[in-house]
Amino acid sequence: MKYAFGVDIGGTTVKLGLFDETCNVLEKWEIPTVTADGGKQIIPDVAESVLAKMQEKGIAKEDVIGVGVGAPGAVNKDGVMIGGAVNLGWGVTDLKGDLEKLLGGVRVCAANDANVAAFGEMVAGGGRGYEDVVAVTLGTGVGGGVILGGKLLAGSAGAAGEIGHIRIEDRETEYCNCGHQGCLEQYASATGIARLARRRLAEDDAPSSLREIPAEKITAKDVFDAVKAGDAVADEIAKRFGDYLGKGLAVVANVVNPQVFVLGGGVSKAGEVLLSYVRPAYEKYVFGPCKNAKITLAQLGNDAGIYGSAGMVTRGL
Amino acid sequence: MKYAFGVDIGGTTVKLGLFDETCNVLEKWEIPTVTADGGKQIIPDVAESVLAKMQEKGIAKEDVIGVGVGAPGAVNKDGVMIGGAVNLGWGVTDLKGDLEKLLGGVRVCAANDANVAAFGEMVAGGGRGYEDVVAVTLGTGVGGGVILGGKLLAGSAGAAGEIGHIRIEDRETEYCNCGHQGCLEQYASATGIARLARRRLAEDDAPSSLREIPAEKITAKDVFDAVKAGDAVADEIAKRFGDYLGKGLAVVANVVNPQVFVLGGGVSKAGEVLLSYVRPAYEKYVFGPCKNAKITLAQLGNDAGIYGSAGMVTRGL
Repeated sequence: MKYAFGVDIGGTTVKLGLFDETCNVLEKWEIPTVTADGGKQIIPDVAESVLAKMQEKGIAKEDVIGVGVGAPGAVNKDGVMIGGAVNLGWGVTDLKGDLEKLLGGVRVCAANDANVAAFGEMVAGGGRGYEDVVAVTLGTGVGGGVILGGKLLAGSAGAAGEIGHIRIEDRETEYCNCGHQGCLEQYASATGIARLARRRLAEDDAPSSLREIPAEKITAKDVFDAVKAGDAVADEIAKRFGDYLGKGLAVVANVVNPQVFVLGGGVSKAGEVLLSYVRPAYEKYVFGPCKNAKITLAQLGNDAGIYGSAGMVTRGL
Repeated sequence: MKYAFGVDIGGTTVKLGLFDETCNVLEKWEIPTVTADGGKQIIPDVAESVLAKMQEKGIAKEDVIGVGVGAPGAVNKDGVMIGGAVNLGWGVTDLKGDLEKLLGGVRVCAANDANVAAFGEMVAGGGRGYEDVVAVTLGTGVGGGVILGGKLLAGSAGAAGEIGHIRIEDRETEYCNCGHQGCLEQYASATGIARLARRRLAEDDAPSSLREIPAEKITAKDVFDAVKAGDAVADEIAKRFGDYLGKGLAVVANVVNPQVFVLGGGVSKAGEVLLSYVRPAYEKYVFGPCKNAKITLAQLGNDAGIYGSAGMVTRGL
């Protein structure tokens, strides 16, 4: 029996998983991410944890197909984080090379964490059975991963799938974290939806259960909970969100024409109701032949990263 | 010596080329496109022309690597025109299968004409030496082709690279040919630039050499000629065009992050001045890591299609 490891390096914890050769998870665990001192302990900690698990399970090096790793930043085709990783304290880091050295030659495959999570959803989640998949993570920000022909698209500067920073609104006055104005992330992320809610509520005095919450504390979850309870103002907010996201997906479809969009991240926990707002907007804006793309919800939650990183290895990418 | 044929089926003529195995053109010719009767003669005419050239040159079937064909419509991975081709009178057509039958088993590779032209520019034109290339054809409409890792992206419905129909303007009142409003094509095509010119001229009475031309006859060429002559109003029009196209390219970069954009089609004949309007807008709108993409002009003109279709064959796609 052959094995693969999936590693998902986040700002506070590193998630790890031991998988069999067809990408079924056998065991999951976590270690803390030590970002102190420029995060220089992170890669050695990952290596130690993987080697310890191999020893614990009696797995020989030659039975490990490889170790897949996702990390928060742009990763090029050679597995180098060319822009570093702010959340980890890293400057330019040869993630693949450094980890391979510490693992004594076990093959390492590294990619951007959002891309890896996208890949996980294709391997074992909402995009299962498809090979042209765009996964969109609706969290604090909006990330994305583009998979074409079953392969993750890194992009020439490791920046493919940065769909959160597609300019979607010309009339925005506030700035996105990236420095631009009108990015999709400003409307479709959890924080973006909360902002849309505050803006809508400030427009008039229409009654809404959302007014019972202090404006600065309204969350995306509050909005969709109110939608489910039949709140008309929340419905309007969700429509604005859906319009922006649907328009963003339409743009993406016009470029890469995927079979399926998989929506994940915290916002997607709202469930099927989310799709009912995104789908009509997508169909309204997309070029005809792309209209039939499926839009579905992610299924793996926080495990998408370890599935995807292990999947890169088991699928020989 | 091995040979390849490149075929570019247009609405009025079919361009053909005989190439050597490294995609150097040996001979070029044209035949008329007979669109009468549902265009049923087109594929037989192409087959006859290819077979006649082989006979003329004494080329044996086993020395032909294959025949590449580009046609105006969505072509799926199996070489089928799934939506037909309005300009040729075709309904759903098995372009690859039908042509292979008539050629007695010579391998045929078929793709959308804009995609094929994009591929040509990568093989032998403005994108030479790169493998992640987005080519944009600024003609009567705006077409595009996405090449990733040296391979043409068809898209799940044959509609990848339809960047002319990215929605780029929310305030448009006129309709695009596709039925939507605010498509990139409405501003960056030859007709789009003429429209921008008419709109700008109607805004006030600012002096401009463009006013000497009847409004309905102004062309994109007139605009860029006036720009080169220092006309201030033409400069404003070109800035509006550049802003739309730069924004469109930025969106594309955020999705697939190419190394280079190659701008072709009639509008690109304006030359380097075009880039001086597109580049600043691109840099203004694009996500940081994508900023370094090159933006360059196409070099093959109307031959891009035959180079690209032959290139699909010589590169073994």
